Amino acid sequence: MPTTLKEIAEKINVSVSTVSKALKGYADVNPETKKLILKTAKEMNYKPNSFAVNLRTKESKTIGLIVPEIVHHFFSSVIKGIIAQAEKKGYLVIILQSNESYELEKKQLELLQNKRVDGILVSIANGTSKFDHFKEVIDNDTPLVMFDKIAKIIDCSKVIIDDRKAAYEATKYLIEIGCKKIAHFRGPLLPQNSIDRFLGYKKALEDFNIPYDSKLVYVLNDVSFEEGKYYAKKLVEEHKNVDGIFVNTDLVAIGAITAFNEMNIKVPEDISIVGFSNWFMSTVVSPSLTTINQPGFKMGKEAFKVLYKEIKAKKKNEKFRYKKVVLDTDLIVRNSTKPILKS
Amino acid sequence: MPTTLKEIAEKINVSVSTVSKALKGYADVNPETKKLILKTAKEMNYKPNSFAVNLRTKESKTIGLIVPEIVHHFFSSVIKGIIAQAEKKGYLVIILQSNESYELEKKQLELLQNKRVDGILVSIANGTSKFDHFKEVIDNDTPLVMFDKIAKIIDCSKVIIDDRKAAYEATKYLIEIGCKKIAHFRGPLLPQNSIDRFLGYKKALEDFNIPYDSKLVYVLNDVSFEEGKYYAKKLVEEHKNVDGIFVNTDLVAIGAITAFNEMNIKVPEDISIVGFSNWFMSTVVSPSLTTINQPGFKMGKEAFKVLYKEIKAKKKNEKFRYKKVVLDTDLIVRNSTKPILKS
Repeated sequence: MPTTLKEIAEKINVSVSTVSKALKGYADVNPETKKLILKTAKEMNYKPNSFAVNLRTKESKTIGLIVPEIVHHFFSSVIKGIIAQAEKKGYLVIILQSNESYELEKKQLELLQNKRVDGILVSIANGTSKFDHFKEVIDNDTPLVMFDKIAKIIDCSKVIIDDRKAAYEATKYLIEIGCKKIAHFRGPLLPQNSIDRFLGYKKALEDFNIPYDSKLVYVLNDVSFEEGKYYAKKLVEEHKNVDGIFVNTDLVAIGAITAFNEMNIKVPEDISIVGFSNWFMSTVVSPSLTTINQPGFKMGKEAFKVLYKEIKAKKKNEKFRYKKVVLDTDLIVRNSTKPILKS
Repeated sequence: MPTTLKEIAEKINVSVSTVSKALKGYADVNPETKKLILKTAKEMNYKPNSFAVNLRTKESKTIGLIVPEIVHHFFSSVIKGIIAQAEKKGYLVIILQSNESYELEKKQLELLQNKRVDGILVSIANGTSKFDHFKEVIDNDTPLVMFDKIAKIIDCSKVIIDDRKAAYEATKYLIEIGCKKIAHFRGPLLPQNSIDRFLGYKKALEDFNIPYDSKLVYVLNDVSFEEGKYYAKKLVEEHKNVDGIFVNTDLVAIGAITAFNEMNIKVPEDISIVGFSNWFMSTVVSPSLTTINQPGFKMGKEAFKVLYKEIKAKKKNEKFRYKKVVLDTDLIVRNSTKPILKS
């Protein structure tokens, strides 16, 4: 059992309140006595009761994190960044996984608030289309930062990439290497980032005078390897002469490459593919995948930094102006796209 | 700011202690008053102060988890299993990453104990060769379960696979398909699982009368993709006629495949490779990787289940007998190994 203040007090024959004051660092304890108490506490392996410390300081030094999925190269990189930065500032991180479910996300937000975490970081589930549960967190005065998958409608700090711009760059690259008929495998209809990536794709086509054809846009639900294979087959069945695909995420793009390899459709000779995220896997698939690099570890660090600023401001009763951090992405050219056209 | 008991009491004109008793479910409150208090608390969005609840129940309903690395298919699967099972029982999970460092692991164990978590799950860092920090946790009466990377010397519950048996099966398979000169890329010298995998490899050679040659065993430090490439090149420089490799982990095996592809050494025609873990990536590399399937999600669930049993036993002051759970592995045959010999 943990050592109690009483046991320390009895051992050196002082009062419990003297021990308590000495351990809290109060001034009105004789320095010699204080020294003896600290030494004894250490010898007896005393650990402060964090619940009592929490009650006193009203801080838990713990934050909550909700991600849609943990077994995911991008999110695990973000988690790593968050934990690394939190640890630097003495914070612990409670992690929950929403499984892309609105109901679970809502329940988990309540759980974290009941736990009195000092702040919450969240990347929104694909299933979420109502956002009142986030408003409640803010009304409840709990600092909240959204990252990657955010809600435009909610007024809070956000750490994101410019999905529209990144998707525009990816599609523009396919046009530059000479693709004329470019399909898009997009994510589900709700998440802001899959909307933005679609809009970036569409804008690039418009800017380069390629007619937009809604039939070339496939809406994925699971955003999985299997869906990538399935829609790659469906695409070649339904359309002739598609020579480029911009895919919402690497995992799906790798599924598509695998299906094309099986069908003896040559990547990139017959069809060029650009993914999104730069998962490690993209370097080992054959051909290796041209993709947008999304800085997960950095996003995690930045998200914690912004949250920490809000927690500190709240503690000092200072007004906090919500921050919007937009991180840079870049196009990584590998072997799933044709060489650039010489002009 | 959160609603206080005082605000509820003032609103309906009862004493704070009556509100407190009603919310704790004590019997000595008038049922009508109790009903009104619960209704008002709900309307005012009252949330119990978890620090105070913790002080009362001496439970935090939180467990700690230390893993060597989060951006890792196997560990993220384990984490997912732990969180899923913990949530079922109303527990939250604080996650820390030791970065394979003994110093960090030690500090993090202290941090979690100071936080008064109800129990700790840990997979040991490669850098750890002293184990007193785990003894302290046990002496401190905090339930502790080790999983995957464990310390034989520490008496506590463990959830593992039989690494030696799995490595034996992998090596035996290479022998069965006709490999005569089989190398081993092993993990660092300290972790028990890399020792056991090495011993399984060696035992299989002995049982099938293939002379063991220590020069064919390469000790890796980072256990990375790059090390896989590096040692694959070194292996073909230093040895002729190696026709099989058993590799400690998939990431390294994929590095080796990549290097062989670059050197125009044919896998599996010239050299067969078996990995370990069954990362998703193993299915997309070309050729796809034959490997040992290590049940990460299940290991996470089992680890929490055992910890939960110990927490419950401790709460009831019952004696708890440490458990050792050994999960099954199996060999997944893909295209990085030659077809089995017809006899």
